[in-house]
Amino acid sequence: MEQIAPLRVRAPKLDGLASGVYLIGAGPGAADLITVRGSRILAQADIVFYDALIDLSMLDWCSSAKLVQVGKRCGSHSSSQHFINKQLVDAASKYPVVVRLKGGDPLIFGRAQEEIDALEKANIPYEIVPGITTALAASAELKQPPTTRELSRTLTLTTLPGRCAHEDYKTAIYYMARDQLSEVATTLLTQGYSANTPVCLMESVSLPAQRSFACTLDQLRFGDVHDHFLDKQPVVVMVGEVYRKKLQTLFPFIESQNHFNLFQKAS
Amino acid sequence: MEQIAPLRVRAPKLDGLASGVYLIGAGPGAADLITVRGSRILAQADIVFYDALIDLSMLDWCSSAKLVQVGKRCGSHSSSQHFINKQLVDAASKYPVVVRLKGGDPLIFGRAQEEIDALEKANIPYEIVPGITTALAASAELKQPPTTRELSRTLTLTTLPGRCAHEDYKTAIYYMARDQLSEVATTLLTQGYSANTPVCLMESVSLPAQRSFACTLDQLRFGDVHDHFLDKQPVVVMVGEVYRKKLQTLFPFIESQNHFNLFQKAS
Repeated sequence: MEQIAPLRVRAPKLDGLASGVYLIGAGPGAADLITVRGSRILAQADIVFYDALIDLSMLDWCSSAKLVQVGKRCGSHSSSQHFINKQLVDAASKYPVVVRLKGGDPLIFGRAQEEIDALEKANIPYEIVPGITTALAASAELKQPPTTRELSRTLTLTTLPGRCAHEDYKTAIYYMARDQLSEVATTLLTQGYSANTPVCLMESVSLPAQRSFACTLDQLRFGDVHDHFLDKQPVVVMVGEVYRKKLQTLFPFIESQNHFNLFQKAS
Repeated sequence: MEQIAPLRVRAPKLDGLASGVYLIGAGPGAADLITVRGSRILAQADIVFYDALIDLSMLDWCSSAKLVQVGKRCGSHSSSQHFINKQLVDAASKYPVVVRLKGGDPLIFGRAQEEIDALEKANIPYEIVPGITTALAASAELKQPPTTRELSRTLTLTTLPGRCAHEDYKTAIYYMARDQLSEVATTLLTQGYSANTPVCLMESVSLPAQRSFACTLDQLRFGDVHDHFLDKQPVVVMVGEVYRKKLQTLFPFIESQNHFNLFQKAS
């Protein structure tokens, strides 16, 4: 088991862990879905800036660090990106190991470019540690590859309801789409997707509160699903023929807990 | 540090780790880019079926397990998928914890559907643990988000040179494209991409042998890059406007080692 440093007692530095800022992907939420590299750097962090979206048990990895919550959560207060950038730059002059812990993968729809630009402008050394992006964690929980040799050999990840052009053999996964479900469906139907194209939706991926649903694009358009979601929980929307079997097992809106609650705690 | 069980001495089982088959994503190659969950299950594995592509230091996580190499490597012998499926099913009747360790994420271009179908048909319980897919590990090494708010809000992952339709604001990342570089370039140029669209290529992502290159689509078409690659190493190809700055720092074909050699070893 990973040794977690007790509160306020500093663990020894990893040999060769350079001073600087580490942008680390926390993964989808469950504390043990961070990478080993990410967890080891967190254990050595002096200060950690974390997103509001990250499950708090994730912070057990860095119990000896100063913790600063930043970032956004649907509908509540958020630090502006500009202010986060400034905090990172300022912290780098005061602390040897600064971590910016971002939900999912730090480079997928995470505004990392702005943080990278700020660090480069200030000549601060930084490294990036990838994380499990939500689309892939949701696929693992669903036990459904987003691509298969027969049905789809292309996967598109997007935040834009209007940007997935119709194409045979294609799966699309939408991030941050909780408030745009009808718009996603309407756009895809307009582009030629059939009304009975299967859709899977998953809320709070990998967390104890995880729930998944399946429906058709037509049902998604008419809002039949929206009432089933909890407020403020992130939802990932998966569209494509590969999900057809899930219409039998997850329809109508069967709630499905994730399988790994026993591994949720970091320690 | 993670405790690795010494050779042939069985570590105690994790509480509640059910018998069955675990499809685990090994990540791109570096041993510490597996998830904590994946590393913990590996430490409890009785038998591990691993891809030829996985860096061997990854197997330090499961030094007490029986190890069976399966899977393919460019140009050399490969186990047929049908035979791998049969091995998994057979092993599940003999060993409590069976691991299928797959490079990258197990569900991205990994033929996992066939293994899942075989396990379900045989009524064998199984779980899937996601892994860092190569596209995101390469992005972290490049320090370049594949999507940015200004240039691209859509990322397409594919194995098909002909399947990325032209669209504004889109980044495409090709897997397993080492032998199709000219075909990828020609297709994209035909679809309207401009000849000076930037391309980044990365070989042996996250491993000590990692190298990266940048060029334009035009150069890719004429094969200027191919001679720089090593035989049999996997290559990921990233295309899009977000990579324009890399033309200055990685062109012409500057070899760039990865930054994390100090973390390569699992123990």
